[in-house]
Amino acid sequence: MKTIASLALAAAVLAVSAPASAQFAKPEDAIKYRKAAFTVMGAQFSRLGAMANGKMPFDGKAAAEYAEIAAFMSHLPWAAFGEGTDKGDTRAKPEIWKEQAKFKEGADKMQAEMVKLAAAAKTNNLDNLKTAFSATAGTCKACHDAFRKD
Amino acid sequence: MKTIASLALAAAVLAVSAPASAQFAKPEDAIKYRKAAFTVMGAQFSRLGAMANGKMPFDGKAAAEYAEIAAFMSHLPWAAFGEGTDKGDTRAKPEIWKEQAKFKEGADKMQAEMVKLAAAAKTNNLDNLKTAFSATAGTCKACHDAFRKD
Repeated sequence: MKTIASLALAAAVLAVSAPASAQFAKPEDAIKYRKAAFTVMGAQFSRLGAMANGKMPFDGKAAAEYAEIAAFMSHLPWAAFGEGTDKGDTRAKPEIWKEQAKFKEGADKMQAEMVKLAAAAKTNNLDNLKTAFSATAGTCKACHDAFRKD
Repeated sequence: MKTIASLALAAAVLAVSAPASAQFAKPEDAIKYRKAAFTVMGAQFSRLGAMANGKMPFDGKAAAEYAEIAAFMSHLPWAAFGEGTDKGDTRAKPEIWKEQAKFKEGADKMQAEMVKLAAAAKTNNLDNLKTAFSATAGTCKACHDAFRKD
């Protein structure tokens, strides 16, 4: 419970962050940062997927760790989608900045599912992991379809 | 305190992780992952440095957030220095694998200083931040000098 409380705290803290423009010296720094955050999150999340899909043996202790890290990481990329970060080495679609409310809603949903996934992973039950993984993966896909170039 | 407890828990959990060989399908995946983790950590850490050095106005709330993220990230790269990850798109020196005890000692020191830095940042006192930042930066430099190519 300390961990979940901490994740909630981290989310709350991040929600009141300084604007992205104050956090990154250059747009390319922001792009590199958000891609790095997604890389770390994705690596952990894909291990959970491998367990959920039977491609990796289920290990409840490891799953709890992977989900904890993925949930933490899920809060980080968003501050790096500030103005001017739509161009450069990025697959971000212009829709991110044209439909900011929708983008934020998608990001919020993903973070909420990640918190549930972390809780599910801690139950040491593969069925719980499968259900929560599937729900979370759906939120990833929804945003990728709408906001990421192929 | 919940946060610090959570960081300590995360460190403990990560310490019993599965070996890196079980975590990454390919060496290049591990290299990409550890670089991403350092990128996220470094971005947060450099903001603390900017505050400590007077290049960014001191903001205790933001500093606490940046340090929290940096401390969390500090646990992540190490599992990605497994066998076979010494070649490729990496500045890692061979000494990492030749002097594994020394490398681990350096990594452990950095993580310990990051926890202290997160605690210092929460005091909302710039002098505390400066002292802890300097101590932590020293552990970064020690490892870079010994284990990272220029």
